[in-house]
Parts: sequence; C-alpha cells; structure tokens
Amino acid sequence: MRVRGTVAYEGTAFHGWAAQPGLPTVQGVLEDALATVTGEAVSLTVAGRTDTGVHARAQVVSFDVADAGTDLARLRRSLDRLAGPDVAVCSLEEAEPDFSARFSAKSRRYLYRYLTAAAADPFRRRFAWHVRALDLDAMAAAVPPIVGEHDFAAFCKAGAHGGTVRRVAEATVAPGPDGEVRFWVEAASFGHQMVRSLAGALAAVGHGRRHPEWVRDLLDSTDRAGIGNVAPPHGLTLWDVRY
Amino acid sequence: MRVRGTVAYEGTAFHGWAAQPGLPTVQGVLEDALATVTGEAVSLTVAGRTDTGVHARAQVVSFDVADAGTDLARLRRSLDRLAGPDVAVCSLEEAEPDFSARFSAKSRRYLYRYLTAAAADPFRRRFAWHVRALDLDAMAAAVPPIVGEHDFAAFCKAGAHGGTVRRVAEATVAPGPDGEVRFWVEAASFGHQMVRSLAGALAAVGHGRRHPEWVRDLLDSTDRAGIGNVAPPHGLTLWDVRY
Repeated sequence: MRVRGTVAYEGTAFHGWAAQPGLPTVQGVLEDALATVTGEAVSLTVAGRTDTGVHARAQVVSFDVADAGTDLARLRRSLDRLAGPDVAVCSLEEAEPDFSARFSAKSRRYLYRYLTAAAADPFRRRFAWHVRALDLDAMAAAVPPIVGEHDFAAFCKAGAHGGTVRRVAEATVAPGPDGEVRFWVEAASFGHQMVRSLAGALAAVGHGRRHPEWVRDLLDSTDRAGIGNVAPPHGLTLWDVRY
Repeated sequence: MRVRGTVAYEGTAFHGWAAQPGLPTVQGVLEDALATVTGEAVSLTVAGRTDTGVHARAQVVSFDVADAGTDLARLRRSLDRLAGPDVAVCSLEEAEPDFSARFSAKSRRYLYRYLTAAAADPFRRRFAWHVRALDLDAMAAAVPPIVGEHDFAAFCKAGAHGGTVRRVAEATVAPGPDGEVRFWVEAASFGHQMVRSLAGALAAVGHGRRHPEWVRDLLDSTDRAGIGNVAPPHGLTLWDVRY
C-alpha cells in the first residue's frame, strides 16, 4: 500500500531532512520509527529536502507498507509518539500506487521570517531571524524581478541538482504580527540555498545597504560572487506543498 | 531613578520567576545582568510571580538605578544581550518615583492554550497543552460563573498569600488557529495555581468528563478536594498587565 503523510518539524536539532549515518536527521527519525512499528525497512520519499536547521509545517512524504490492511490512524499515532517532540506526524492516508511526494508535487512554498522588534521574542526566536528594522517598501520593490523563469545561479549554491534555472510562481514581502516581516516564495522547485540566498539579499535591501534594483542586477549577473550573507536557516520554514 | 521595564520569557528552563539560590530563575538571570552592567545590587519588583515552566509575553518589572543619567536604551540592549535567548528585555523607560510593577498594577491577564490537533505542533508545543478534541461550547458554558468576586479556595493551592477571595474581571474561551483553544482570564490578582486549576477543570468539561455546571458547583464548594488535574504550566502565559 502506498501511503501519503504530512509531517511537521522544528529543524533546530536536526542535520536537515536527509538521512546521514551517525547524525540526527528527520528522515532518520521517521524511518527508525517506521522500522520499529512495521518491522520493515521503509524508505521515505519527501517533497522538500530541507537543510540543517530548516523547519517544516506541512512537509509531505510517501512510502510503502507491505500490509494493505494497515490501520493508518493507529500507525500515525505510533509514529507520532516514537518520532519525539520535534517531529509531528500530522496525517497518513492511502494514496494512488503511483503517488510520489517528490515527483507528484506541483510546487513548494517557503516562508522566511524576520523579527525586527528591539528584543528577540522568546516565543518566535527559533523560527525567525532577529534583525534590525527593515524597510518593507524597499524589500517589496526588490521582489517582482525574481518572479518567473530565470537562471538563479547568483542565488544557488554550487553543485545543486537540476541546474539553476527555476520558475518562481509567486514571491511577496508582507508585514506579520509584532514587528515580524514575512517573505513568501513559491516555485515548482528551488536550487540549493536559493530561498536563504534571496532572504539574505532582501535583508540587505531592507537595511538600506543595497538598492532594490541590486537584486535584479544580481539575478541578471548569474554570478554568485556578488551575493552577500545567506540568511540563517532557523528563519526558514517549508510551509506547504501543492499537488 | 525608578525604571519600568517590559520583559518576555520562555519559562521552560526556569524554576519560575522568583530568585532561588542555585536554581535558574528569571529574576536571578535579570538581577545578575543588572549587577554586571550597573555594578550595583539591584532588586527587581515584578507584576506577576510566574511559577516554574510558565511563560510571559509582557511581564512588567520596576527597579532603581543610582545614576539618574543612565542611558536606558543602552542599558536595555546590554541587559537583553546578557539575559540570554530565553529572556528578552523589550523596553525600559523612566517611571514616576512611586511606580511599582507590583502594587501599581490594576490587573493581570493570562492566556492558557490547548492544542487539539491529532499531532502536537512542534512550533507551539512549548507554549500549549496538547490534549484530545475539546467541546468549546461546553467550556464556554462553564466559564461565566467564575467572573466576579468569589472565594476561589477550590481553585487555589493551599498557602497562597492574600487569601482565596479574588475578583475575576473577564474570562473567555475562544478558538485559535489550527485547532488551538484559548482560555483568557483577567483579574486584579490570582491565587496560587488558580489559572492552571481553572484550565484543568475546563479541560475536564471540554472532554465531557464533567458537566459545565460542575465548575460552578466546585467554586461554591470552596473545597479543593473536588478538583481533578491541574493543567501543566507550559500551556500558561502571562499575557499583559494593566496599570
């Protein structure tokens, strides 16, 4: 039976999604839990392979279980309990035999959060980057050029799979509660560290160190040498996945 | 110079507000930071002495500094840095010489959060109690009798200062985002563990183990023997203080 699951996690304590021997990873925790419950070596397919320290609100996974009569509500409870407090197994449902969390996905949406209040909010500090005041108008002016299909080589870490040409479906900057600033971006797929590179560039614009047009110029340059700081991972959350 | 400050903290790692030798407390952290920066032994007065594990969003403190010319913006930054990631010093301002964070306060408002989704949300698990589905209508029906002046002996831990008669100004149960349920309660002051005792009783009603009228009966009994589980501290946040 092919199973589709939704999981949420705080990435702080994990070396990212992808299993690595001897390191705590989200995939490792979930596959260990599946092995414990089902007695099988189950391999997970995932919609978005998040990096070290990056969170997920509605990550999607797919996997197979040998027993077509598996009680998925019960399996969900068992996995949720075993996965520990940083990983939640929110839902499990039977999927079409050809469903793939990775290849069936139409787009991934990420949220990057900045906190701009004088003091870092202890309730949000794990999930947002605490920075000085940001000029939202300048950031919003910098965003439109990244929408559409472009070579994002200037914003992707070298060695990324699938090249650096990507189509960004939507990108917006919006105010959140209590001095929070939110950068939303959606695309079929992203290059390695692309969202955090964009979030770092937008912070440079928001702090007045760069003009809004600089983001377009950087994009056109397709040269990563011009980019400044990549935004830290703890501000980034994989928000949801569309199918 | 009398100073009024607003601080926020995640209570998870602290043995409550009040300083205790050899234990991590919010007061201890802040008084140590003040001693480091000012070179003086500064004693803090606080609006709400939160218990072990309880959080605060806009806790209010008052204290004196010897130098009337102290740069409070700079002092705030220094304290915020020294206090560490779980405590934020949000603002400092000069107050009237007779201002007391404790005695000038007109009321304290607390928020108790329950999470009712099947899986505990990793982003909110530190700040909310994960429980089974709650009947909001039943909980809302149980709340009105606690508003007004009553002897809350049934809901206060023995040994509380100032007796057990309190006047609750407002109490409501409301839905929050993604299966969150919020119990808001405001009063001039609260007895020891009063909010968590009320939150525990409301959960018993929300789970159908008790009728809504049971809360009124318990209140009328002024007998703590009848109460069930006190709700855990991590769901409770001191939200704000009115002056």
